[in-house]
Amino acid sequence: MPDSRAAEIVRGTMRLLAGLGFHGVTEMTLANNRRADIAALGPAGEIWIIEVKSSVADFRSDSKWPDYMSYCDRLFFAVGSDFPQELIPDETGLIVADAFGGAVIRDAPEERVAAARRKAVTLRLARLASMRLMQAADAGWTVAPALLT
Amino acid sequence: MPDSRAAEIVRGTMRLLAGLGFHGVTEMTLANNRRADIAALGPAGEIWIIEVKSSVADFRSDSKWPDYMSYCDRLFFAVGSDFPQELIPDETGLIVADAFGGAVIRDAPEERVAAARRKAVTLRLARLASMRLMQAADAGWTVAPALLT
Repeated sequence: MPDSRAAEIVRGTMRLLAGLGFHGVTEMTLANNRRADIAALGPAGEIWIIEVKSSVADFRSDSKWPDYMSYCDRLFFAVGSDFPQELIPDETGLIVADAFGGAVIRDAPEERVAAARRKAVTLRLARLASMRLMQAADAGWTVAPALLT
Repeated sequence: MPDSRAAEIVRGTMRLLAGLGFHGVTEMTLANNRRADIAALGPAGEIWIIEVKSSVADFRSDSKWPDYMSYCDRLFFAVGSDFPQELIPDETGLIVADAFGGAVIRDAPEERVAAARRKAVTLRLARLASMRLMQAADAGWTVAPALLT
């Protein structure tokens, strides 16, 4: 999803999530080597993954979404307001967003992550966000780009 | 520790920690309302807290350090090279740092955090780092300053 439309949906979705008390990162690689567009943690440690689709073509070219399901409690798609919502699978939730915000149109069914995996995903997210924050704060510190995803 | 000497020690210590595979944040408030100068997570989820002391006066004015011990597996003091190292308590480790890096002079004894607290500290760190990262990345997003510590 590395186009500018997708970047707008990401920003609006991150703002929406923050308003719901969910904080996380973009572009986080999971243990199965899939990269989640957004992974976020709720106040009680709930894990949400959000896949961002900028167009129907983008959605159709991607059959990876079931791979994310066992890494989160709820999986959402985030799309623009012109996206045909009937395409979104029932197993997932739906967020509609633009560059400035968004809304949860349909909640995702909950499927709780196993405890060991919840721990691993939370730790990975914590270390990844910390690394990126340090990269932003300390211009003299360098890190292999591969570690930042 | 909000002086410039302390800020230098923080930066050097963060670089040292990153080299050891520990990533975390500065100024994280714990559940007991104490604020850790640095809290960092190791690859297996180990929690280290580092208290930064810019001077002997700074060290002597602070009797709070035992309050941090039950929130981490290891507690360190980080000081400059001119700090009298014999003042550092045996229960803690010692890091000497300047603005550009540092070294672990004495490891800290390990006292493992209880599982529920490890989970809580890890989650708090993940959400805090994510929030600060979002604040840095999205100028249009505002958050109550109290949430960022």
